[in-house]
Amino acid sequence: MRATTTVPARGAARTSGTVRIVGAGLLGSSIGHALSALGVDVALADTSPGQLRLAVDYGAGRVARDDDRPRLIVVAVPPDVTADVVARELAAFPEAVVTDVASVKLEPLRALRERGVDLTHYIGSHPLAGRERGGAISARADIFIGRPWVVCRDDQTSPADLAVVEGLALDVGAMPLEMDPVEHDRSVALVSHVPQLVASLLAGRFAGAPEGSLRLAGQGVRDTTRIAASAPELWVQILGSNAAPVVEVLDALAADLGEVAAALRHPDAPGARRTVADTIRRGNEGVELLPGKHGQNRRFAQLVVMVDDTPGQLGRLFGELGELDVNVEDLRLEHSPGAQFGLAEISVDPGAVRRAEDGLTARGWRIASTTND
Amino acid sequence: MRATTTVPARGAARTSGTVRIVGAGLLGSSIGHALSALGVDVALADTSPGQLRLAVDYGAGRVARDDDRPRLIVVAVPPDVTADVVARELAAFPEAVVTDVASVKLEPLRALRERGVDLTHYIGSHPLAGRERGGAISARADIFIGRPWVVCRDDQTSPADLAVVEGLALDVGAMPLEMDPVEHDRSVALVSHVPQLVASLLAGRFAGAPEGSLRLAGQGVRDTTRIAASAPELWVQILGSNAAPVVEVLDALAADLGEVAAALRHPDAPGARRTVADTIRRGNEGVELLPGKHGQNRRFAQLVVMVDDTPGQLGRLFGELGELDVNVEDLRLEHSPGAQFGLAEISVDPGAVRRAEDGLTARGWRIASTTND
Repeated sequence: MRATTTVPARGAARTSGTVRIVGAGLLGSSIGHALSALGVDVALADTSPGQLRLAVDYGAGRVARDDDRPRLIVVAVPPDVTADVVARELAAFPEAVVTDVASVKLEPLRALRERGVDLTHYIGSHPLAGRERGGAISARADIFIGRPWVVCRDDQTSPADLAVVEGLALDVGAMPLEMDPVEHDRSVALVSHVPQLVASLLAGRFAGAPEGSLRLAGQGVRDTTRIAASAPELWVQILGSNAAPVVEVLDALAADLGEVAAALRHPDAPGARRTVADTIRRGNEGVELLPGKHGQNRRFAQLVVMVDDTPGQLGRLFGELGELDVNVEDLRLEHSPGAQFGLAEISVDPGAVRRAEDGLTARGWRIASTTND
Repeated sequence: MRATTTVPARGAARTSGTVRIVGAGLLGSSIGHALSALGVDVALADTSPGQLRLAVDYGAGRVARDDDRPRLIVVAVPPDVTADVVARELAAFPEAVVTDVASVKLEPLRALRERGVDLTHYIGSHPLAGRERGGAISARADIFIGRPWVVCRDDQTSPADLAVVEGLALDVGAMPLEMDPVEHDRSVALVSHVPQLVASLLAGRFAGAPEGSLRLAGQGVRDTTRIAASAPELWVQILGSNAAPVVEVLDALAADLGEVAAALRHPDAPGARRTVADTIRRGNEGVELLPGKHGQNRRFAQLVVMVDDTPGQLGRLFGELGELDVNVEDLRLEHSPGAQFGLAEISVDPGAVRRAEDGLTARGWRIASTTND
């Protein structure tokens, strides 16, 4: 690492001329940093002078001027004001392509159509990137690297305008992905908004639990509820803006949940046992469908190695894996409650698992288990 | 690591005499391996001669004999035959303490009481340990280390018998934890059985999803659904044996889910927005209640560092953290789909975060972010 990223070198940007970014928060400023690093002229605007000053001071671009003639305008404001700002920018800069980066796509489009705005040069988009903290101060040039950037073209969209927006995505290291707004909103409902709600609902049940019961919690429930640690303000707005697709998935989930609860309540009813088994089996199939690393459903072999809870142990482990020419594809550390050591679950290419296991064992490491599915 | 574990050295076992283990599957054989390593005489029995042979060949103990006089009997058979086997063992060995390791505790006890068995020397227990694969062939001596081992004493239990079962837990490296069967079953319903079902139900919705939508999946949904990759047979039995507590949590969850769905469906109804916000907020509070490493709710600071997708990179990173005297408390690797590098999210003590950040930056690493909650 250190030397190589997928961000093109300075001067190699697809984006040319001035890019105007309205909203200098996390996403707007991050785009500004990434483009500025490529030598693109970035003109920033924000209703908050303090936020704008921070973004400029941190190097996300310069303050926008009245005589700017941008080819591309990026609207990076909260979902509930996106349509207003897009309409205003389209009117003020009739020559420019205007995109937005809101995490819902149908609601802003509906609002724009309702007020009769000419949307010829508007292309909604959504980079699937972010951080838990917002604001210009949290902005980073690299948050888009390798992530999908959904681009919602329509029949009105000219190839030239589309190339400008997709060029932006490519310049910041993202992967442009064409989808229509309905498909986009239903997709994020399923893979982002509903999982968030489910994690929150599940973790919400812990509040009333007797303290002792939570001592039995292991890695499974910790993973299942991890994303429940999210900011309420942002999620209320996201869920509200995508309510219909979210409710559709929630309703289907509630029906499935009711079915399996009924089967457990009446285990002797016809098909009850089968309902429970099918629930687990469909879950098995579902996780297999999620894209893994490098966008594939490729499976890795896992090695579980015991590591002491002292500095440098993981360094030795990974250093020795490097010497064995074994690439660590993924890694998960599990600490046993109360114990002074942990288990490192290492995913490696199935072809390398034997080499890793033999090499580590020879060097004195304790391999707790090896699975090679 | 390498040299130190919490397993006592050979000969230092609290357990004395012969331990009879009925059921030479994953748990029974693993206990056998751990005790054998301490020099304890382990007598194994199993209805399957093949399974028994495997367990003995792998070193979990010897084949049980008619003249064995065990002080302790461990029943490690599937939940639905646990009560039968416990009753038979109590009758055959009236001098011995009998424990079982089934993952539900009330149902076997109820069955034993129903048939009027003298339960003076029976103490139900449950080690919270396991692996995704079962059988003697998957057994490992170290799966119990640092994990809770619930022990269900009652008014009849003598201190001497209790000491024998808790000694077993300590000998294999587990932490004995006294709970009553009702409390145990409700606890595992909340922190294990319902999370499993919820992950399965959520992942089950992916099956019908248009393929494109899953391309937008990120680390959040992967974590939320990870445990959905579990064996259906085992879970049908576990859920069936603990149906009442599981249904109770499912019903509460269904009510919460219905409430938030109604709030999203009718956003202008009184309190709707607040219901959504409260759902997210209660989730925030819930995850905070889960015990972390060392059994505390201690929070760590996170550093996100970019690492190349080549062997040895993590080794260099952790080696240098070791040189900086920074202990890695937890670690999570995120690979961006399609990218040839990853982000390593490293949890460190809040007091060490500045040292880690400055030291790594000075050595040329790119720190993507730092959070210190």
